[in-house]
Amino acid sequence: KNRGCLLIRCPDQPGIIASISRFLFQYNANIIESSQYSTNHESGNFFIRIEFDCPSLPDQKEEIKTRFLGIAEKFSMEWKMTFPSDVKRMSIFVSKELHCIRELLFEWQSGDLMTDIVLVISNHEDARELVESFDIPFVHIPASRENRQDVETHQMKLLEAYAVELIVLARYMQILTPAFVEANPNRIINIHHSFLPAFVGARPYDRAYQRGVKLIGATSHYVTNDLDEGPIIEQDTMRVDHRDNIDGMKKIGRSIERSVLARSVKWHLEDRIIVDGNKTIVF
Amino acid sequence: KNRGCLLIRCPDQPGIIASISRFLFQYNANIIESSQYSTNHESGNFFIRIEFDCPSLPDQKEEIKTRFLGIAEKFSMEWKMTFPSDVKRMSIFVSKELHCIRELLFEWQSGDLMTDIVLVISNHEDARELVESFDIPFVHIPASRENRQDVETHQMKLLEAYAVELIVLARYMQILTPAFVEANPNRIINIHHSFLPAFVGARPYDRAYQRGVKLIGATSHYVTNDLDEGPIIEQDTMRVDHRDNIDGMKKIGRSIERSVLARSVKWHLEDRIIVDGNKTIVF
Amino acid sequence: KNRGCLLIRCPDQPGIIASISRFLFQYNANIIESSQYSTNHESGNFFIRIEFDCPSLPDQKEEIKTRFLGIAEKFSMEWKMTFPSDVKRMSIFVSKELHCIRELLFEWQSGDLMTDIVLVISNHEDARELVESFDIPFVHIPASRENRQDVETHQMKLLEAYAVELIVLARYMQILTPAFVEANPNRIINIHHSFLPAFVGARPYDRAYQRGVKLIGATSHYVTNDLDEGPIIEQDTMRVDHRDNIDGMKKIGRSIERSVLARSVKWHLEDRIIVDGNKTIVF
Amino acid sequence: KNRGCLLIRCPDQPGIIASISRFLFQYNANIIESSQYSTNHESGNFFIRIEFDCPSLPDQKEEIKTRFLGIAEKFSMEWKMTFPSDVKRMSIFVSKELHCIRELLFEWQSGDLMTDIVLVISNHEDARELVESFDIPFVHIPASRENRQDVETHQMKLLEAYAVELIVLARYMQILTPAFVEANPNRIINIHHSFLPAFVGARPYDRAYQRGVKLIGATSHYVTNDLDEGPIIEQDTMRVDHRDNIDGMKKIGRSIERSVLARSVKWHLEDRIIVDGNKTIVF
Repeated sequence: KNRGCLLIRCPDQPGIIASISRFLFQYNANIIESSQYSTNHESGNFFIRIEFDCPSLPDQKEEIKTRFLGIAEKFSMEWKMTFPSDVKRMSIFVSKELHCIRELLFEWQSGDLMTDIVLVISNHEDARELVESFDIPFVHIPASRENRQDVETHQMKLLEAYAVELIVLARYMQILTPAFVEANPNRIINIHHSFLPAFVGARPYDRAYQRGVKLIGATSHYVTNDLDEGPIIEQDTMRVDHRDNIDGMKKIGRSIERSVLARSVKWHLEDRIIVDGNKTIVF
Repeated sequence: KNRGCLLIRCPDQPGIIASISRFLFQYNANIIESSQYSTNHESGNFFIRIEFDCPSLPDQKEEIKTRFLGIAEKFSMEWKMTFPSDVKRMSIFVSKELHCIRELLFEWQSGDLMTDIVLVISNHEDARELVESFDIPFVHIPASRENRQDVETHQMKLLEAYAVELIVLARYMQILTPAFVEANPNRIINIHHSFLPAFVGARPYDRAYQRGVKLIGATSHYVTNDLDEGPIIEQDTMRVDHRDNIDGMKKIGRSIERSVLARSVKWHLEDRIIVDGNKTIVF
Repeated sequence: KNRGCLLIRCPDQPGIIASISRFLFQYNANIIESSQYSTNHESGNFFIRIEFDCPSLPDQKEEIKTRFLGIAEKFSMEWKMTFPSDVKRMSIFVSKELHCIRELLFEWQSGDLMTDIVLVISNHEDARELVESFDIPFVHIPASRENRQDVETHQMKLLEAYAVELIVLARYMQILTPAFVEANPNRIINIHHSFLPAFVGARPYDRAYQRGVKLIGATSHYVTNDLDEGPIIEQDTMRVDHRDNIDGMKKIGRSIERSVLARSVKWHLEDRIIVDGNKTIVF
Repeated sequence: KNRGCLLIRCPDQPGIIASISRFLFQYNANIIESSQYSTNHESGNFFIRIEFDCPSLPDQKEEIKTRFLGIAEKFSMEWKMTFPSDVKRMSIFVSKELHCIRELLFEWQSGDLMTDIVLVISNHEDARELVESFDIPFVHIPASRENRQDVETHQMKLLEAYAVELIVLARYMQILTPAFVEANPNRIINIHHSFLPAFVGARPYDRAYQRGVKLIGATSHYVTNDLDEGPIIEQDTMRVDHRDNIDGMKKIGRSIERSVLARSVKWHLEDRIIVDGNKTIVF
């Protein structure tokens, strides 16, 4: 495939787009999609995502990357150039609730998620049958507060062995250690079953029920070492009323969780997300 | 008009509906709308709202109320019987932002709010022209932390003089004292410009922006002495993205605030809301 | 289980609810949920759904039904009394697109659809593996315009053999004959991939794209002999924009289709739907 | 103000963005917002909207426009360059229903619509008081089938006298003649009270009610000479159920109509809309 994707962040100033587009034009690349954003009234940062089609890309990937360094330095860019044909390798972590992993597996099977799901890790056996029916390796690593260190050592070896580039916590009910999180910056996506920042932490549906809210929600975010405080990728809500008890809220919530998580994973795989401090820019 | 409305809460047991419906049948009343709810798995409370049409109602209001006492006692009911033809008298409190009061005035002018808006009180002059163009009395009572007691004494005299039954805080940016709140239980509706319980307190849009949320919301609730903690009546959300700065969020938020508040006021006026502890049942 | 459900339609008049509730009270039944609707300004019809809990139900089902006949006759009711413990037997018809049947199978597996899925019939082989992985019989009946009669004869024999009470067309791309439809009144649910009555018939996404709509939708309805004209059960829409080509619309549409269909089937299984002419009342 | 806006349509080919951005860079212009779209798989057309900030703009408007001609010719562009400081002059046409004009007037008063509302024309007197309270000229031109020609002659003279650039039909219940429409291409925005293409023509809520739909909607579009067939700008829907009769649907519909229309007018005023055949691209 001839597609490439540029993700850039740099201080805003005139001439950035002119330089990038002239550069791409030299390679006869056609810009397919381009989105930009500037925080000019605040920090003065400029963000851009450019998807381009370049006939000679397969032969010139490395040259293009190397030659782009000149522009990147001139404008002090943080940047990456990716190629959709380099499909990202993904691992799913799951516990006992299967609705989120099911959604991901089916979106993937339908061709709507461009990824290789190379490994599923769980602290329970519940997902094994489902996962193995897709011919995906399933590894059961029982977890408890006592053995967290061993568990993560095991997990990290597996992630390395399978060359995993994205970890999706599809209702994985274990807290990760700082070491694990720091080893995977902006590469772990979690789904939290509330509309953050409401109901951070455990049992959000119980607390939503007690508070008598009229909408419930779900939030996907990159995992950082502040519980449920990482950069939000996507959120959604649905209506509930007094008739919905905690179980009813959970049922409704499941359908929000799975669609919010699936959208986030899709955007990450398509390199549509730039993390800016504790926020995301989704192009 | 021949319409009546019964709002009841009592311990759940068989026979309640049979008794009520037999009672109404004796007066040849036709049940127009009936909604019920039972918390049987928890507290065992039963709630019902019945709207009925009774040809002899105008002549028998008092008799019907008196004779219903027997049933009410038998089932240990908390209840009230209201008549849509007794239009509720309402006062609006407002500060400088006018979008919410405007919405209420226009819904009212269009005939969509069955109420008499008898008085508007504000700590600023901004709403005067708008309010007086509807021939509604507007009273400006400047407010500050120092004179809160005097202000509320003045307000309460006015509310009494105008026989106000419902107070709507349409972006009124002053905190009410416990004495004022306790004197008006479940009779003060506030609109809070966030999706509660997220962003309780001041400057919710600023904080929503800092947190990088992907939806913003508004919440209407009855006012209690816990700030932004009263029983929620209605909530709604709308999508935002990284391009929406604080001002953009406020613009989007205004359209949520006004529709959420208008719906809540409408439901209150139609006697559709039963407060159950810190929750509402909206029939 | 002690649960029963009454669905009634009759001419509106005072005393109906009093009679029903007194009747249920005689059997010591507690009314769990009750919803009613009256078209009093138009046809004067009254509709009610009552769910009740009756300790002696398992022993008295037949007696209760028989004795209710008196009330039913007095008020000229069309009615049925059902029991959630009598789980409905359901068959799914499917062609090549699997997202709808998948959703139904998973909702069912998660315990969110109270039904026995006893049979899947398809004019293609695509769904076989999925269906058989749930241990549900899958029957492939190739279909064409020429053999429609034979196909339906075969289908009807199977439906009878499996005692099917509900047929769900989960993107089944064949038109049923009038004979088949008339043999299954209000017992066939179809999902149409547009917001009816827009884009009746074939290729709705193509036509939505050509028309440049900004929202696309899906509609579930009972099948009648007027193509896509049967009583609508549920509809929903999602936002699209100029970037969404036909394939993009189909992807978005799939997620609307499956949730709209799943909700409709759930409501049918819980006896929440009364068909009134060409409309549905969903309680 | 130093802001400018470029709207371009041309055949797609490499180098367009490079040329435009180099051109703007020569004037030291900073690109504030840029959105593009390419129909490469179909017609091969390219569309772009660029908003830029240029310190020397006030002195160089004409020079910049003239010099851009070279690029425009090279790439066979249809284009326009506009300046937000040249506020567009707008006229509202209205009949008896006032909710849409009210919304526009208040969005305008709140500073959310950058326009001069210079004239309101109506075939009734209902809106006069409202309009004149905003110090906007109101002209009553009674309309009937017989005098359509005279009415439009009168209207067109007024539009010319007031130099009107955008006509908004805010529930104006008269059909415009082909001559009038052709004189104002893509400059007349209408709000239709249904989710087009469902319920084209008169009495959409009545027909929605008869059909038993579960959602109702509204559609804004540019007016062409095919009734309700012009390019759609925006649509939205809200949920209804069997309890909503025609009046109830109208109430709900009014709130959809006014927000859909206000958004469309805002986008038009900000030069965010490109008409492409019978579709719109909204950037």
